[in-house]
Amino acid sequence: MTFQLPAYHPPDFTQPPFVDAPPVTFRRVVKSGVAPDDYHATSIHPEYFQVEKNRWTLLEQSRMDCVVVKRDDGSLVVKAFRKLERGERVACGRRENGEDGIFVHAEPFESQDQTLQKFAFRTRTTRETSFSIDYDELYDLLEFERRNGFIVWVLGPAVVFDRDSREAFAKLVAEGYVHALLAGNALAVHDVEAALFSTALGQGIYAKKSAELGHYNHLDAINRVRAIGSIEKAIDAGIVGNGIMKAVVENDISCVLAGSIRDDGPLPETITDACQAQDRMRAIARRATTVIGMATVLHTIATGNMVPAYQVTEGHGVRPVYFYSVDMSEFAVSKLVNRGSLSARAILTNVQDFVVNVERGLRRRKTGFRG
Amino acid sequence: MTFQLPAYHPPDFTQPPFVDAPPVTFRRVVKSGVAPDDYHATSIHPEYFQVEKNRWTLLEQSRMDCVVVKRDDGSLVVKAFRKLERGERVACGRRENGEDGIFVHAEPFESQDQTLQKFAFRTRTTRETSFSIDYDELYDLLEFERRNGFIVWVLGPAVVFDRDSREAFAKLVAEGYVHALLAGNALAVHDVEAALFSTALGQGIYAKKSAELGHYNHLDAINRVRAIGSIEKAIDAGIVGNGIMKAVVENDISCVLAGSIRDDGPLPETITDACQAQDRMRAIARRATTVIGMATVLHTIATGNMVPAYQVTEGHGVRPVYFYSVDMSEFAVSKLVNRGSLSARAILTNVQDFVVNVERGLRRRKTGFRG
Amino acid sequence: MTFQLPAYHPPDFTQPPFVDAPPVTFRRVVKSGVAPDDYHATSIHPEYFQVEKNRWTLLEQSRMDCVVVKRDDGSLVVKAFRKLERGERVACGRRENGEDGIFVHAEPFESQDQTLQKFAFRTRTTRETSFSIDYDELYDLLEFERRNGFIVWVLGPAVVFDRDSREAFAKLVAEGYVHALLAGNALAVHDVEAALFSTALGQGIYAKKSAELGHYNHLDAINRVRAIGSIEKAIDAGIVGNGIMKAVVENDISCVLAGSIRDDGPLPETITDACQAQDRMRAIARRATTVIGMATVLHTIATGNMVPAYQVTEGHGVRPVYFYSVDMSEFAVSKLVNRGSLSARAILTNVQDFVVNVERGLRRRKTGFRG
Amino acid sequence: MTFQLPAYHPPDFTQPPFVDAPPVTFRRVVKSGVAPDDYHATSIHPEYFQVEKNRWTLLEQSRMDCVVVKRDDGSLVVKAFRKLERGERVACGRRENGEDGIFVHAEPFESQDQTLQKFAFRTRTTRETSFSIDYDELYDLLEFERRNGFIVWVLGPAVVFDRDSREAFAKLVAEGYVHALLAGNALAVHDVEAALFSTALGQGIYAKKSAELGHYNHLDAINRVRAIGSIEKAIDAGIVGNGIMKAVVENDISCVLAGSIRDDGPLPETITDACQAQDRMRAIARRATTVIGMATVLHTIATGNMVPAYQVTEGHGVRPVYFYSVDMSEFAVSKLVNRGSLSARAILTNVQDFVVNVERGLRRRKTGFRG
Repeated sequence: MTFQLPAYHPPDFTQPPFVDAPPVTFRRVVKSGVAPDDYHATSIHPEYFQVEKNRWTLLEQSRMDCVVVKRDDGSLVVKAFRKLERGERVACGRRENGEDGIFVHAEPFESQDQTLQKFAFRTRTTRETSFSIDYDELYDLLEFERRNGFIVWVLGPAVVFDRDSREAFAKLVAEGYVHALLAGNALAVHDVEAALFSTALGQGIYAKKSAELGHYNHLDAINRVRAIGSIEKAIDAGIVGNGIMKAVVENDISCVLAGSIRDDGPLPETITDACQAQDRMRAIARRATTVIGMATVLHTIATGNMVPAYQVTEGHGVRPVYFYSVDMSEFAVSKLVNRGSLSARAILTNVQDFVVNVERGLRRRKTGFRG
Repeated sequence: MTFQLPAYHPPDFTQPPFVDAPPVTFRRVVKSGVAPDDYHATSIHPEYFQVEKNRWTLLEQSRMDCVVVKRDDGSLVVKAFRKLERGERVACGRRENGEDGIFVHAEPFESQDQTLQKFAFRTRTTRETSFSIDYDELYDLLEFERRNGFIVWVLGPAVVFDRDSREAFAKLVAEGYVHALLAGNALAVHDVEAALFSTALGQGIYAKKSAELGHYNHLDAINRVRAIGSIEKAIDAGIVGNGIMKAVVENDISCVLAGSIRDDGPLPETITDACQAQDRMRAIARRATTVIGMATVLHTIATGNMVPAYQVTEGHGVRPVYFYSVDMSEFAVSKLVNRGSLSARAILTNVQDFVVNVERGLRRRKTGFRG
Repeated sequence: MTFQLPAYHPPDFTQPPFVDAPPVTFRRVVKSGVAPDDYHATSIHPEYFQVEKNRWTLLEQSRMDCVVVKRDDGSLVVKAFRKLERGERVACGRRENGEDGIFVHAEPFESQDQTLQKFAFRTRTTRETSFSIDYDELYDLLEFERRNGFIVWVLGPAVVFDRDSREAFAKLVAEGYVHALLAGNALAVHDVEAALFSTALGQGIYAKKSAELGHYNHLDAINRVRAIGSIEKAIDAGIVGNGIMKAVVENDISCVLAGSIRDDGPLPETITDACQAQDRMRAIARRATTVIGMATVLHTIATGNMVPAYQVTEGHGVRPVYFYSVDMSEFAVSKLVNRGSLSARAILTNVQDFVVNVERGLRRRKTGFRG
Repeated sequence: MTFQLPAYHPPDFTQPPFVDAPPVTFRRVVKSGVAPDDYHATSIHPEYFQVEKNRWTLLEQSRMDCVVVKRDDGSLVVKAFRKLERGERVACGRRENGEDGIFVHAEPFESQDQTLQKFAFRTRTTRETSFSIDYDELYDLLEFERRNGFIVWVLGPAVVFDRDSREAFAKLVAEGYVHALLAGNALAVHDVEAALFSTALGQGIYAKKSAELGHYNHLDAINRVRAIGSIEKAIDAGIVGNGIMKAVVENDISCVLAGSIRDDGPLPETITDACQAQDRMRAIARRATTVIGMATVLHTIATGNMVPAYQVTEGHGVRPVYFYSVDMSEFAVSKLVNRGSLSARAILTNVQDFVVNVERGLRRRKTGFRG
């Protein structure tokens, strides 16, 4: 089965209440970083703003919990509060049905689509929910997106704690199924540790034996990378001879390593400032057509906050963004849902199995082998 | 790599304290179902009883938390308390080092064995532990056991909630990797429901759509089987055309369906009395050389209580029993450990993935395909 | 604040579609234990059956997933499938809106009630949901139910693993907040173990020290009770000097101990046959006006299957049944919801804290101490 | 019972292998931020360095996974790798038994201490472990530490999602049981939101009703604080009239709000750079004698990385540091243990109950009321 994007249904602005709606009100920023009191906050849905009478503009590259600024040329841009500058004009009004000149389009895509239908049952997804179809649809989707979309993976360190999943993800990168990688310092640290010592936190990633003085391994990994100057240099010098970071660097994949207060090191490539890291992640997230978050609540929610439910593309017009969250616990899934990332699809399993399965499934699909 | 059973190291009874130890004391049962006050309770380990001076007898087909009865011919048999009959002679004494004529052999197998070494880290096994090697070793083990052992699977209903895992397990049965199945009423109910309606609890096991009036599906499944008289008859009549129960019946696999207070129905084959169900499970468990418990804490712990850490076999002498627990939560794993099933190896993942992976892995191994 | 039962809104059968509805069809049972093909299965809601034209009868003492039998005197009784006898007349028809002479009344109580409103958010309840109001409302409810209702507690063994929660629950019994207790063999085993040895599974219930040879403690507890003949006799003889079972026996509380395949022993009072245990549980559940299930998925779901969302009482007419599930995991909660026990309210916490809090809260309420 | 600190047992350096041990080797830093190849990494234990023959110096204010630098005056200081400057002298050698002039003192305190004994069972602590004694010991400990120690609380946002726990923690601050608070941006955001709107993420923190347009509430809270300039100014201006942040500011409690990539805002007080936040957290952690981490894996592990198992104090010499982790999942606990924070004591429950219980327990203790 080949993958089909669902059709987009634009609103009909010739109907009420749109025809009677006023243009949206914009108010000036009085203090940089602070919005006017009745600012409009964005959602994950397509939103239209009547910038002037009878001209409704669709937000491009939106994201939730931000504000909308009108530029001098009349175009609109979505901004984080902290980036507002004194004098900028912010869209105001909180009614979402058009009466304030703002329309939040909450059901934009044809609903006969398999994918969207299932979202109705989302809040009760548990470990006992069937996931066979999710794998099959994901293979179709990734095959489509490899050529037509932009696939962003968000990884917790567990992926490199296991030999097979680490290798499988590196293959996914080499095969073109990864357009960007968002992760934390720890993913890279333990990936380099695995390359140097075949361990993660001192324990073998295959044989599970504890290495002698193994608690030095990740510190040694960091220290060596810091000595040579960067992960990229360590790869070029042949010090890091395999793994996910090597695949990312060699295939020229966009990558952000965001720092946290838990980090050792950090590695030279790690961005320690949260706002700067958000900006870099956001530069990637705005291009995303599919996002797969695995084994990290922090990074998955952070990315979820940056990714709207739709994307305006050149080739395919307005299309949905697919968002998967792969985790072991119902809590992680509920937490994502409770924060408003409503369209996320959950797969409850160990990410080790998930990554290995996806890589094998895509390969089987190509070779036609039913294995 | 071919699988090798680790060597058994029998105790040397010519050494102290064995040489000075008294024969074990046996006391008569005064009231049926009640043991003498200082009864000896069995463990999961090999245990030796000095029945008469210089004759140490190894318990065969032992299990934990039972008592040891001497038969008239001098042989020993392990019995549940509730089966004790008035006048029977019960082994007494609680010292485990030989001084009471009883020796609990806690480290019976060669420890250079990969498998046993890893048990040392067991209590900290989490979802982030690497499981690649466990899969690889399991393929070797199952291939060996298929011909040389007795593989008992203990299944929670989640296995039949998903199309692919349901099919994969049926293939494992057909391929000879399943010698016995222990489960509850619900597994069979939803397996039959899937055969009749392609749903589990009314939700499609592949497409996940909610069937119209789907909450009738499992009741209809039960009602139809009860109407025809048994699952087996429903299979013979072609009413149940696929699934795990069909594979089990057609391949003549030993199977116990134990009832519980949560059951609808129950199905005719379900044994509703817990003691009777224990007896039937025990008749299977006593033959087990490998046990794999999946997605059921209740049945896995119940089976764990019935399976010792060793088995005395004709072909291979005293050999270890391998016990796997596959579940999503660290709690399930800790609970098993806290109840004394110390040698269980945990794999933390979704059983759907686990079953599909195992079936594919065994197949790849045979075909030599690196897929 | 004093507790107020929400008003019941009976359907108006003088309106369509009721006025045109036919009397319900009854079909004879052909084979005992098997329902006619198009049987009507009960839900948790109030259900009305038009037994003869213009006479709609409300089911009393209903429960989900059962069938409705018309007795010779024209009255209706809810029966489990397995209890159907040849020749009995079973209500048939699956439309729930009256067109088959059957009306399922899904919103029977006034919705301005605080309690019902919150159910709307139920599916997203997590450990991070606020539970302060649930405690406060529960104090009001229990105070009301102590005199006007029938409070059924469903306990997992964890309640007796901790000194303070074991004592607190015994106090709740003594103070009249417990009208019936449903549990498994293990609860009583470890409660007796605690009375004899101050341990649970060999570990101190307060100091947490492992007792020497502590793995004998629960076996000794069982053996001694079996020797004397029953828990009640062990209490009378002063062997069991404190705990939950003592409070239950001395206060003449209805109690069912249901057996399972995991049980050691079992104790003499334990009912090992699941069907018989269901019958005994059901005899209690049919009287329940409030149910509180704690730390046991098996028994809570089993009880949930037996308790409808309403109760027809003498003093208060048709009133809601309150159902609480107290557990640590979102999975346990979702599982209950996914099985149709829609009106259950979840509190996610450790039952040890829950029981201690409830006992203290009720006491504070009486003494007026804000402690 | 009054709390007693366990005695410290210093090593006897007049015995072998210490008497024959060489002075520790120090090597110069060649590149800032990079340690010499065979650097010694610190643990959580007391560590002694033989700076010159027969002079063994105990590290003060240590932390794990750092290096030891000798200052010009011969004194030692523990430094993060990233703070190393070119030319500094770093202690080298990885043997921990003294042979490299370095001794890691892994069992420094008298073991008859209740607290330490229990750590032996730590890795199997589950939700079913008894926690009564932990509460009682914690009351004693906090009463002692209030006057003699430095109590650091590490809070996840869940504490302010519930009215009673939010109020209880504010009382703990006012009563002197909180000497420092480590948290993330979200804790303060939702605490301010609660003060302004009585909601958290738009849901009532007591009544649980969803506020109209409630998804604006936390954004409005942030925007208003940013408008006025700081949380402190918002409190002074009477905008934030209750809650944890108000208690912290008014009682002059040390506080670090660390930023993350998930944050909205952030609030003006939030430190967005992870390294800078670590430094500020570390300045607090180095004074800690008791740490209580609640409902946050990230911040608890981050703090755990900064706190050794001992503290050198003026009044009490070398004493243990007590570390509690309060969380709902066994996974969170195992994760802490697997990262080497070996002496953490876990309490598995909902932090809402925990905080309310601790506040009430300390109050009961004072008033002598048995409530």
